[in-house]
Amino acid sequence: MQLEAVVRRLELEQLYSAYVHCLDTDQLERWPDFFTEDCFYRVTSAENFEAGMPLGLIHATSRNMLKDRVSALREANIYEPQRYRHLLSSIKIVENRDEALDLTANFLVVRTMQEGDMTLFAAGRYVDRVVRASEDWKFARKEVVLDSRQIDTLLAIPI
Amino acid sequence: MQLEAVVRRLELEQLYSAYVHCLDTDQLERWPDFFTEDCFYRVTSAENFEAGMPLGLIHATSRNMLKDRVSALREANIYEPQRYRHLLSSIKIVENRDEALDLTANFLVVRTMQEGDMTLFAAGRYVDRVVRASEDWKFARKEVVLDSRQIDTLLAIPI
Amino acid sequence: MQLEAVVRRLELEQLYSAYVHCLDTDQLERWPDFFTEDCFYRVTSAENFEAGMPLGLIHATSRNMLKDRVSALREANIYEPQRYRHLLSSIKIVENRDEALDLTANFLVVRTMQEGDMTLFAAGRYVDRVVRASEDWKFARKEVVLDSRQIDTLLAIPI
Repeated sequence: MQLEAVVRRLELEQLYSAYVHCLDTDQLERWPDFFTEDCFYRVTSAENFEAGMPLGLIHATSRNMLKDRVSALREANIYEPQRYRHLLSSIKIVENRDEALDLTANFLVVRTMQEGDMTLFAAGRYVDRVVRASEDWKFARKEVVLDSRQIDTLLAIPI
Repeated sequence: MQLEAVVRRLELEQLYSAYVHCLDTDQLERWPDFFTEDCFYRVTSAENFEAGMPLGLIHATSRNMLKDRVSALREANIYEPQRYRHLLSSIKIVENRDEALDLTANFLVVRTMQEGDMTLFAAGRYVDRVVRASEDWKFARKEVVLDSRQIDTLLAIPI
Repeated sequence: MQLEAVVRRLELEQLYSAYVHCLDTDQLERWPDFFTEDCFYRVTSAENFEAGMPLGLIHATSRNMLKDRVSALREANIYEPQRYRHLLSSIKIVENRDEALDLTANFLVVRTMQEGDMTLFAAGRYVDRVVRASEDWKFARKEVVLDSRQIDTLLAIPI
């Protein structure tokens, strides 16, 4: 492994760390900045993903659509009685393309209700593609592949 | 990223790994050694933390107070019928001060009872400050910010 | 920390990442390749492990035994109605031997049933020994030490 590869790996870990903390501290307005302008973002089930089904709980084909989603969430969620906590694990480079890297990583999201009840909210893996954008890495694609068919939520939140 | 930054990042990961294994293997007597002499340690809820409330389930303003806490736990917990397992994720450098680093990281603690029941015991994030102490990094501050208002335990254990 | 140590640490993280994704994507036929030919693999409880008991839910003393295990699982599990997701955390080098490294790491396995129910399936730690095999690291020993006495499964799957 070259020093360059070491540095890149740590940069990628920092990307995921920043992404996770952005969501968990509810800074959703900053969330679209992790993506390229013409990004693809989807939350789907493993079943749909493996069957090649295009559907998803959330489906966006640009950064602007992600911004619209955040606006919609903010209008709907006037009162937010729960907290989400992401645990991320095992980032793996699946393919090293010329201009992009295909990555996968496992996640677990734990939800804590205001009264204190904690539940396993979602588990699964990211199937991502990142590209270098000046100093930073950004997600050109992010597929959130859930182990379950559905998640227990009224409003699909970013994962 | 410079090589120096790479090395530092891995040192910080090692610090957290060592911390986690110290707790999970119940080597509590070694736990205070992860802190500076005049450290600040607190376990609190996200609600209290965000409101700037000084209270907490555990509150210590020196390493000696942490040692006292361990002694108290050892006297009380003659019989320990459960195991705790920390999952740590997404260490992030929030601010790079001259002599110290401000860090945050997500955690999940799973508790397994002797009969085998497993529960989500605590989820949240660390809000930490580390300083270099000769060869090692030590926690000058550690705030354990729980997503829930309270944790289901008779005796507040270190997290 | 030397550059060599940095590179090695990242190689070890990659080893665990690859291992986890191999299991979670159900590529069990590739699982024995993570081990040396004369490997030792065991799934046991913390209780048994600490008492030095040789027993275990799974016990293998060669890579071929692991292959047999996978064959048996494939024959039995004609229909697989659940998914497993590994969260791995806090890889720690416990001892640096001449030709081998002793490692430990925490894990949590979440199981999602086809109907969507998610449960904490297993938590615990790996107690591992890795050796360098040409380009790669392989597990010469892997002990899966569960926090609970038993796991809720009809067929002991690899962890």
